[in-house]
Amino acid sequence: MPALPPQEPESWDQIRKDIHSIIIPNITHWQSPNFFAYFPVGVSYPSILGDLLSSGLGVQGMLWITSPALTEVEEVLLDWFVEVFGLSKDFLNTSGQGGGVIQGTASEVAVTALLAAKYRTAKLHQVDSQTSLEIMEKLVVYSSDQTHSSIKRACIVVGIPVVHYREIPADASTDYALDPIKLEEAIKKDIEAGLWPSAVVSCIGSTGCCAYDPVDKITEIAKKYNLWHHVDAAFAGASFACPELRVKGLENIDSIIINSHKWLRVNFDCSLFWIKDKFSLINSMIVSPVFLKNKASDLGCTDYKDWGVPLGRRFRALKLWFVIRTYGITGLQKNIREHIQYAELFEQLILKDQRFLIIKRQLSLVLFILRNDPNQELTQQLMNRLNATGEYFLSHTALKPYRFVIRMAIGSSNTEREHIEKCCQRIFSITDTLTKKSSL
Amino acid sequence: MPALPPQEPESWDQIRKDIHSIIIPNITHWQSPNFFAYFPVGVSYPSILGDLLSSGLGVQGMLWITSPALTEVEEVLLDWFVEVFGLSKDFLNTSGQGGGVIQGTASEVAVTALLAAKYRTAKLHQVDSQTSLEIMEKLVVYSSDQTHSSIKRACIVVGIPVVHYREIPADASTDYALDPIKLEEAIKKDIEAGLWPSAVVSCIGSTGCCAYDPVDKITEIAKKYNLWHHVDAAFAGASFACPELRVKGLENIDSIIINSHKWLRVNFDCSLFWIKDKFSLINSMIVSPVFLKNKASDLGCTDYKDWGVPLGRRFRALKLWFVIRTYGITGLQKNIREHIQYAELFEQLILKDQRFLIIKRQLSLVLFILRNDPNQELTQQLMNRLNATGEYFLSHTALKPYRFVIRMAIGSSNTEREHIEKCCQRIFSITDTLTKKSSL
Repeated sequence: MPALPPQEPESWDQIRKDIHSIIIPNITHWQSPNFFAYFPVGVSYPSILGDLLSSGLGVQGMLWITSPALTEVEEVLLDWFVEVFGLSKDFLNTSGQGGGVIQGTASEVAVTALLAAKYRTAKLHQVDSQTSLEIMEKLVVYSSDQTHSSIKRACIVVGIPVVHYREIPADASTDYALDPIKLEEAIKKDIEAGLWPSAVVSCIGSTGCCAYDPVDKITEIAKKYNLWHHVDAAFAGASFACPELRVKGLENIDSIIINSHKWLRVNFDCSLFWIKDKFSLINSMIVSPVFLKNKASDLGCTDYKDWGVPLGRRFRALKLWFVIRTYGITGLQKNIREHIQYAELFEQLILKDQRFLIIKRQLSLVLFILRNDPNQELTQQLMNRLNATGEYFLSHTALKPYRFVIRMAIGSSNTEREHIEKCCQRIFSITDTLTKKSSL
Repeated sequence: MPALPPQEPESWDQIRKDIHSIIIPNITHWQSPNFFAYFPVGVSYPSILGDLLSSGLGVQGMLWITSPALTEVEEVLLDWFVEVFGLSKDFLNTSGQGGGVIQGTASEVAVTALLAAKYRTAKLHQVDSQTSLEIMEKLVVYSSDQTHSSIKRACIVVGIPVVHYREIPADASTDYALDPIKLEEAIKKDIEAGLWPSAVVSCIGSTGCCAYDPVDKITEIAKKYNLWHHVDAAFAGASFACPELRVKGLENIDSIIINSHKWLRVNFDCSLFWIKDKFSLINSMIVSPVFLKNKASDLGCTDYKDWGVPLGRRFRALKLWFVIRTYGITGLQKNIREHIQYAELFEQLILKDQRFLIIKRQLSLVLFILRNDPNQELTQQLMNRLNATGEYFLSHTALKPYRFVIRMAIGSSNTEREHIEKCCQRIFSITDTLTKKSSL
């Protein structure tokens, strides 16, 4: 690319050529059927159309008055997805106390959830969350060490010293889930030390290995000690669209995030966030400058600007609306069940080869390593060589006691059975080469 | 809309009909040539195409490795706009120490700027920004009371008690700009009280009345007391594309935000954020989970995940790229100069009618009230009636000593001279009706 911007207009033809020479050869193809890294990000034609309409309309949803349909369609859609996922009716926007909102990412949601928790904890200790000087040195946040790094990031952002973020170690003994006994011990210890336990974050489908924390037991503890209970179901929550994949104990949590832009064919960014007590969130961060004052706000219309950090907001509900209508609940379910079947297929194929060890399969994520591979050095080479082909892209994690575990994350809208089979063949053939060289 | 989501697929035809019956009649038409409220948000065909390509590619830019072209094109584009706006070369990504990044909104940028400031202040006082217990009760942030509410919101978000956010009153005596003498007095007082002055936010083009803070003098004070100097030029910064509209004193600031999605024909959301010392920002918030570790990161490639709160990132540089190439710098300049001419025209037309008082015009924003209107009650009625026609949409602010001032903010890509003239005529005719009834 030139070092300086163009002074005069260029033609679309010049730009179009550069898309094919500069962009396409140099991106990581997240929408390839052979993309199995991280977690998938959604895409589909109705979703793209929704985004396109949002771009074309170019409206802002900071206040109800700045585009009533933007706010109202978003409210209805979030209520629809309470139904799709079988969540508690206390999360419905029509419930009065609870509600749902679209945010950009789970990371942003984590920040807002901690702010709501801070508000509640401040109230409990009879200080004001916005003016108290001491509050930031008191608050404590809990999760397992398998929880996504966005929770630690959120602590840093909202000013909670990281030494007050308790990452409780989770290992194979609990299937990498948060141990409620250890959680309660940690809370008790902090209370004794004069600290204010504020929030616990459970994850349903951790990023590393798709671990499921015992939400029901954690809720009991959260209630007992007055903690905010936020559930991060960013990836796995999509599976709640299938009744057989729902988890128990979600009735009494305080908030939950499910990314529609991962496994529901909705384009990034579209994080769905529900909260039981919306006033904790709104009161935690409301600012009302004179230039935004209007009658609709005074009458109590929903102003989504106070449900998150950004003021400006795109019309993101459109893509969610187009997707759920184009596929129906049954269409979304079909997609999820198919991907889980593909993961089961992958697991079976891998298990047929004695050189491999399956560490875990949950939903459409399969974790595996090579057997007899101390420190997983060959496993790491296997992944690197597979990725170096340019045909496949997988990612990894560490999972005690294993230093390097390959993650096969299935969920691209374009993946079919044959892609799984071919990927397996390629894994076997690279392993052949590797094991010939080594003494595996 | 139905109370429940569809179980089975619906046709595009059904969805398309609802766009026209549910959405179009119920949005506020930000892209109408008669939209003069708040500040404009950009739109243009090349920008829409850029967003469309971003949706279609569906790639993620959290790490360099997750889509190299996404990160590299963003780096080049931010460097191009350093040139477009005539900013300091210390902000170039190629400078090594500084750099630019696209974020969603100025509100999100404010949060990250305060986190970088916190990091620097912590270092100065020899504490660790992430672990210190006392830091949040020490930090102080300064700005004028005309600065956007996002700065107060950012203080709330990052945990700075709002009692340590000094909103220094600005009035007509400084043309609503921050008074450097008052700023220095406030800083001295806080230092005497044992607090840690951390950041000062200047605004160039305040939301209420487009006030310009004296950036050069504020920089002197910031340097003297080791404060981070962040400049919020969210709206007005676009005008720097025209050399005659640049302001002095931007050489030694620490960071600046300019929204390309306001006045540069780029679709929301696309905030451009530059920082002189990128390491303050990155070190303030870096988290490195094992599942994101990779060789490119180890080698020092830019991972934009550590430049802001969100982990996932769209390919937003595409729309910026398509816009600057389609219009060239000259095209963007033409747009801005035309809108300023329209504002001058509006001012002249209003001034011809003795019933009106122009409070201020800056760039393409004109503020006016009715004369002889105690408490601006008729002025408020005038705006309400104008907006109630459904043809026009204007917004207001308060500006000491006036309680209600109408803001005419010109900047829609579709506005032409005739729209200004007709709006004026409508303002006059509504005023005729109003003044007949009252004793104006």
